[in-house]
Amino acid sequence: MRVLVLGGDGYLGWATAMHLSAVGHDVCVCDNFLGRKLHQQFDCEPLFPVPQLEERARIWGEYSGRHIEVKIGDLTNWAFTLRLFNDFQPEAVIHYAELPSAPFSMADQECSALVLHNNLGTTHNIVHAVHETCPHAHIIKLGTMGEYGTPNIDIEEGWIEVAHKGRTDKFLYPRQGGSLYHTTKIMDTDLLWFYVRIWKLRVTDLMQGPVYGIATKESQLNPALMPHFSYDAVFGTVLNRFVVQAVAGIPLTVYGRGTQRRGFLNINDTLQCIRLVVENPAAEGELRICNQFVEVFSIVDLASRVVSAARTLGIDVEVSFLDNPRAEAETHYYNPTHTKLPELGLQPHLLTEETLIEMIKLVQSFRDRIDSKHILPKVRWQ
Amino acid sequence: MRVLVLGGDGYLGWATAMHLSAVGHDVCVCDNFLGRKLHQQFDCEPLFPVPQLEERARIWGEYSGRHIEVKIGDLTNWAFTLRLFNDFQPEAVIHYAELPSAPFSMADQECSALVLHNNLGTTHNIVHAVHETCPHAHIIKLGTMGEYGTPNIDIEEGWIEVAHKGRTDKFLYPRQGGSLYHTTKIMDTDLLWFYVRIWKLRVTDLMQGPVYGIATKESQLNPALMPHFSYDAVFGTVLNRFVVQAVAGIPLTVYGRGTQRRGFLNINDTLQCIRLVVENPAAEGELRICNQFVEVFSIVDLASRVVSAARTLGIDVEVSFLDNPRAEAETHYYNPTHTKLPELGLQPHLLTEETLIEMIKLVQSFRDRIDSKHILPKVRWQ
Repeated sequence: MRVLVLGGDGYLGWATAMHLSAVGHDVCVCDNFLGRKLHQQFDCEPLFPVPQLEERARIWGEYSGRHIEVKIGDLTNWAFTLRLFNDFQPEAVIHYAELPSAPFSMADQECSALVLHNNLGTTHNIVHAVHETCPHAHIIKLGTMGEYGTPNIDIEEGWIEVAHKGRTDKFLYPRQGGSLYHTTKIMDTDLLWFYVRIWKLRVTDLMQGPVYGIATKESQLNPALMPHFSYDAVFGTVLNRFVVQAVAGIPLTVYGRGTQRRGFLNINDTLQCIRLVVENPAAEGELRICNQFVEVFSIVDLASRVVSAARTLGIDVEVSFLDNPRAEAETHYYNPTHTKLPELGLQPHLLTEETLIEMIKLVQSFRDRIDSKHILPKVRWQ
Repeated sequence: MRVLVLGGDGYLGWATAMHLSAVGHDVCVCDNFLGRKLHQQFDCEPLFPVPQLEERARIWGEYSGRHIEVKIGDLTNWAFTLRLFNDFQPEAVIHYAELPSAPFSMADQECSALVLHNNLGTTHNIVHAVHETCPHAHIIKLGTMGEYGTPNIDIEEGWIEVAHKGRTDKFLYPRQGGSLYHTTKIMDTDLLWFYVRIWKLRVTDLMQGPVYGIATKESQLNPALMPHFSYDAVFGTVLNRFVVQAVAGIPLTVYGRGTQRRGFLNINDTLQCIRLVVENPAAEGELRICNQFVEVFSIVDLASRVVSAARTLGIDVEVSFLDNPRAEAETHYYNPTHTKLPELGLQPHLLTEETLIEMIKLVQSFRDRIDSKHILPKVRWQ
């Protein structure tokens, strides 16, 4: 299948591109390197050196014998977007081309304006480009479990039937996110749902939990193929940051009491989910929403697991409880459904001690590159 | 009270500014004339000549003895927005600074991108400017009844309690709009609700139905003070268009069977509602949502009323049923609540035959300016 991976230079984008290429799809990646620029601007280099995208595609070709096409450009630019879609004629479009950081979106007006403009501008252009050039293509949009927030009722997979005063109707599940970033993802869903209704697009919206992990089958071919792995307070996800803190001997920084619960998944399960969804597309006029996570943990539970795995490698590390820089409920009900992806065939990787030990060992081999100055949170929500 | 009216050059903005000025508030209006530019671009002049905003403010001062301050600039420009709020230090901010046309937002990619960028960009900057310069100011945001769409359950005023699997929680009422324009209004609500939670802003979101009417107490002082009255298929609201069609002897164009039902209000009730809300602000950390309309009519019912009122003035006009250019349910349940504004003191103006006759007479005196070439819809949703 002809698959366009937008945001193909990022943590998940590049790993996805290689995985889909490995299993036989014709992949084109597109990126404008905005992620790299912002990492440089915040002086947050990734843990592993990441060659330029064209170079990674060349190395991938060398090791796999498979070609990944590379296009450099900005998807908020309509002329570029239209040409890209017209030239490649994708059958599936994987939309990672958004700024994914909650703290970045809360840093100041300039940052939040950039997140708003970039995330909605790319989604809007992608929808119009599909409509104009390849209306049967399947758009796969990365959403986030954070769109739901922490409601006091069970979280369903995207939709809910509401009974009210003796009548019923089915609606998008109510959403209220915990940052401007999460709010842009809610808006994306509104935007996609509108155009699905009007233009009968095929869309899958994946409500993904925080991802952890480093190595994937494809990235193990050569260190230059490793993902763009962040561990700082702005761009790093929590478990990846904990692993780096353990290796650096810095106490694991838990925000608040750490009783916040979230649904997590391994990067290898992200790749599985995306492949399953690419190969089992949504119907025309369907907005299919899947909750993409594998296990629910509290933050303090994750920290304990990292402490324990580190101990087996002779590393002693503590947990440090910080004043929560975010505005979020620390004690809350949390019971999210997640059956659609297992029904499509997802075989989950669980967060075992072995998984954590492997992550720690891999990070240890890059220990000299750890820069601890960006690990403590500086952005406060209030 | 110091009241900032954003989008103060528009149909409702200018009438609101005069009304609040007349009752003793200190009013500053701001506009970038984007509305005028787009009307010119689409070659849709308003029915009455509308002097420049500064000139209208000067004439208003002459007739009323009250000063309205005028600021020209673009609220998607952060530096301008910050300076405006910092200089004026508003206690209430009335946010009309959005592109309000559903057909315009569906015309092509360029138009929808402009609506998305303008509507969310202005709202985002206004929220940040209030937070940075006047955090206790009350933001009054014009939403639309169209955000709710036509659900199969009763429409409440902004919020709904959902019982699900033995538990309950309260959420924003589910929204799904009928155009990209309506979708940007839904997104605005998401954006405001996020910042209300985080920054404890005071916000009132007015879900307004289609407005009709021309003369207000203040605009009757001088013809130069009349509102920017549109009757074309892109920028005109339905009842205003029907009145102009009747005067021009053009059959009233009903989209589809005209059984679509909506909640309508007279421009004089918009002014009342805004004044009531300005003088009874939302609490800190409250997103107060009011459904702002007075009576529910079907489109074909409105057309019949115009036909009948016209007949009393000796005008014979027919109703013409067009293929519906929009994608909307023509037969649907519709039972929207609207108690909050009456509770604040709204004394509704009903759509009587006298009201229609007055509108028809006023339009007759400008009959020579009617340009019929833009009355038929050209934008199709699908």
